[in-house]
Amino acid sequence: MSTPASAATPRYILMHENDNVAIVVNDGGLPAGAVFESGLTLREAVPQGHKVALRALAKGEAVRRYNVIIGYAACDLPAGSWVAEAQVEMPDARELVNLPISTNLAAAAAPLEGYTFEGYRNPDGSVGTRNILAITTTVQCVSGVVDFAVQRIKNELLPKYPHVDDVVGLEHTYGCGVAIDAPGAMVPIQTLRNITLNPNFGGQAMVVSLGCEKLQPARLFPKGAIPIQNGGGADPALVCLQDAQHVGFMSMIASIMRQAETNLAVLNARRRETVPASELVVGVQCGGSDAFSGVTANPAVGFATDLLVRAGATVMFSEVTEVRDGIDQLTARAATPEVAQAMIREMEWYDNYLKRGGVDRSANTTPGNKKGGLSNIVEKAMGSIVKSGSSPIAGVLAPGEKLSQKGLIYAATPASDFICGTLQLAAGMNLHVFTTGRGTPYGLAEVPVIKVATRNELAARWHDLMDINAGRIASGEASIADVGWELFHLLLEVASGRQTWAEKWKLHNSLVLFNPAPVT
Amino acid sequence: MSTPASAATPRYILMHENDNVAIVVNDGGLPAGAVFESGLTLREAVPQGHKVALRALAKGEAVRRYNVIIGYAACDLPAGSWVAEAQVEMPDARELVNLPISTNLAAAAAPLEGYTFEGYRNPDGSVGTRNILAITTTVQCVSGVVDFAVQRIKNELLPKYPHVDDVVGLEHTYGCGVAIDAPGAMVPIQTLRNITLNPNFGGQAMVVSLGCEKLQPARLFPKGAIPIQNGGGADPALVCLQDAQHVGFMSMIASIMRQAETNLAVLNARRRETVPASELVVGVQCGGSDAFSGVTANPAVGFATDLLVRAGATVMFSEVTEVRDGIDQLTARAATPEVAQAMIREMEWYDNYLKRGGVDRSANTTPGNKKGGLSNIVEKAMGSIVKSGSSPIAGVLAPGEKLSQKGLIYAATPASDFICGTLQLAAGMNLHVFTTGRGTPYGLAEVPVIKVATRNELAARWHDLMDINAGRIASGEASIADVGWELFHLLLEVASGRQTWAEKWKLHNSLVLFNPAPVT
Ligand SMILES: [Ca+2]
Ligand SMILES: [Ca+2]
Ligand SMILES: [Ca+2]
Ligand SMILES: [Ca+2]
Ligand SMILES: [Ca+2]
Repeated sequence: MSTPASAATPRYILMHENDNVAIVVNDGGLPAGAVFESGLTLREAVPQGHKVALRALAKGEAVRRYNVIIGYAACDLPAGSWVAEAQVEMPDARELVNLPISTNLAAAAAPLEGYTFEGYRNPDGSVGTRNILAITTTVQCVSGVVDFAVQRIKNELLPKYPHVDDVVGLEHTYGCGVAIDAPGAMVPIQTLRNITLNPNFGGQAMVVSLGCEKLQPARLFPKGAIPIQNGGGADPALVCLQDAQHVGFMSMIASIMRQAETNLAVLNARRRETVPASELVVGVQCGGSDAFSGVTANPAVGFATDLLVRAGATVMFSEVTEVRDGIDQLTARAATPEVAQAMIREMEWYDNYLKRGGVDRSANTTPGNKKGGLSNIVEKAMGSIVKSGSSPIAGVLAPGEKLSQKGLIYAATPASDFICGTLQLAAGMNLHVFTTGRGTPYGLAEVPVIKVATRNELAARWHDLMDINAGRIASGEASIADVGWELFHLLLEVASGRQTWAEKWKLHNSLVLFNPAPVT
Repeated sequence: MSTPASAATPRYILMHENDNVAIVVNDGGLPAGAVFESGLTLREAVPQGHKVALRALAKGEAVRRYNVIIGYAACDLPAGSWVAEAQVEMPDARELVNLPISTNLAAAAAPLEGYTFEGYRNPDGSVGTRNILAITTTVQCVSGVVDFAVQRIKNELLPKYPHVDDVVGLEHTYGCGVAIDAPGAMVPIQTLRNITLNPNFGGQAMVVSLGCEKLQPARLFPKGAIPIQNGGGADPALVCLQDAQHVGFMSMIASIMRQAETNLAVLNARRRETVPASELVVGVQCGGSDAFSGVTANPAVGFATDLLVRAGATVMFSEVTEVRDGIDQLTARAATPEVAQAMIREMEWYDNYLKRGGVDRSANTTPGNKKGGLSNIVEKAMGSIVKSGSSPIAGVLAPGEKLSQKGLIYAATPASDFICGTLQLAAGMNLHVFTTGRGTPYGLAEVPVIKVATRNELAARWHDLMDINAGRIASGEASIADVGWELFHLLLEVASGRQTWAEKWKLHNSLVLFNPAPVT
């Protein structure tokens, strides 16, 4: 990767020596006539992050980036042309047969030892990075009441329990008016169940139910589904609004506050203790991507992913439609054939899900992606996959499943930022890393979100929203390894309690349960 | 309908003289051996709201309620038996061919004149019942920022504009990470567009966008889509967070607050004026239904619906899966063959939507419905349709469409309370009537919700959540007409500014956009 120094010099970034396109790095793009160090001259103006042809491409010739065919030239393109979206014809999706299985397994890297953070050790062995009272809801019907109660709890109870960070109502739109016995309905149900078990909630589950909803508490938490203790029992503490004991609105609020206080007292006794970095469970994703996502922020995250795996931690990468076009890379990196098969199973499931809706994986890309220089989903996918680093893939989770192993995990989720984040929470994430090129103020109430900017300009403009600036990689001020290490250290600090910008402003996006089944 | 007086006497309600089952009215149900006035003796205990066989039913014989076959006896049932869910085999859905078209058109009832309310007349001719600053969002990404801004606006600006009732961020989970070109994607998009035009928002549209999302402002509001004036222009005022002018988080908040203040100043000049009852646009729906929904609350709503239609107002009824089994009644009541065809088109669309997800209309019923005595979707549907009264059906709306006529309208929506309410808001509802038997604290920030209890016991227990008690119909204290008139008068009062219980407690459920297309 070439990153010349001066900001004024025309510069491009080449991802692989076999590539025949590279992306323009300069802020504001470059005008026609600009001459690169290599001698290449631009035939036309090219916006920042967009592709330039390094040599003449004949109509129909493969356009190659990341050493992968991202499409075919739609017309003859002389050297120095802007290779815009319209000039690249997208290839078909790789068929899910005859894939390379476990053929590209990186040799085990040296363990990374001695790194620790200050976390909350839970009875089930998991470790929280925050100390939060979460109130699970079975159905949207109760969320107005829970909002009211949460305000009262924050104002009247929380000051008495200073070791508790926050109170969060786990509001969602599932629970009734849905086809709860349909194929796929298990996805939102197990997601909500497993979110309740997130390490940041300290095993103090508490549920508010309406009473007549389809998602009955016994269905959400069948006997034995909860491996944690709650106030002495194996079931989560339950407040049911339709119970005969609730006479008048304030009796419902009183019931919720009474249970909340019981749980707050237990949570308030939690203390941070030194734990090894291997207790980190990091979910990585990207959103508002541009062409720099795949050359600055995502590679830096990939570097940190490798460090985390070496430290014995867990890292999840996700976003099915953004790995679909690189499935052969992933099956080749599957630690075992079973892992490769599970990956193929998830791709097939999503292919069918999209097909039922009349679309395919190319529905992923956004106007912002294209404005940012990403021609199509193949190019976007190659830049997205690099977040996973280079380690063998140790396991695969279906949407809504909970982790049961460490290492690098493929957690299959939609790419939608909120659905992906919600499913990673359900898997057991205790830290979230989010890269963005166009910029998004994304944040979750349940877990700290570290946001990584792909460009200097964004990092400067959103100086109090972006936690790390990977744009310095494009400007030559830092290497991928530099930013990767910086992120690794920041992860340990944030896990120990340092606030991210999203936490400081209390920017909280909604939980969005993935429901592939119909509503009724 | 028989409603004997004393509370201790065993009583049942018969809906139609041809019915062979009736429902037990007494609080707490009745024990085996209870003798009704008719001489019928219960063979077994029957819970309140559940069905008793009025005469012996042979296995396979039609079980008839509302003079409709709600199923077939699964076994021999002697007179006085409890006809529980397991004893009723559900019939197939009525095929959508050879339906009676406009064969049952009620003679035009005498116009109801002289009724008025105090409403906010808008430039486009619509009338609001509240004066609300609504902030439309294009995408979930911005909702944390909008929440922050709304709090600041409420604390710092709203006190300066005392004629404005509230500030509401129109948060939703659509806008990106969705297949925006898929068949069906127009549903959420036109829903959000039309909600922005709701009469309660006074034509002061204001939009917060991220910038790179799939649902671009120009796609949400194409030229000419907005028939209202906004600060002098035809486009809604737009704040785009990714705009270069936004340096730092507080600059985004400042932009939103600046635009909000401009809109607040215009809204603050609105005054209530006397308008005819014909300006009411009432959306009716039910949720948490029991067997009393169809004999007390819903018939009373149906009575009020007829009054409203006679007064020249608009009433929407909805909930496709709850009218599907009564489609023949509805096509017979269609004012024109075109209306009947539109109704059939909506049923077919939903049949196919459910089928793609592997279910049918029977996925509608809930555990609470069944506990409340409703055996299946056919029985539930018959009790749901009565909300529509007896007028001819003047028009049909597809999901997300905006009203363009008055009278009784079938607005096709899912039965899900939040999705139905959201779609009725998009249609232009300025008052919402919600009946419930099991009880739900449902409320919306955008429009007043009047909640009607089906039973005395619920009305007493939830005395500060239910606005009207239709249970008095079952106990013989009031007639359907009495409660219907009471509701009609309450509608005019609430439209004029009287607060409902949900408003008093600020119980606000989420907007839920109906998205029949996949997420990516
Ligand atoms: Ca992504
Ligand atoms: Ca994403
Ligand atoms: Ca919310
Ligand atoms: Ca209903
Ligand atoms: Ca409903």
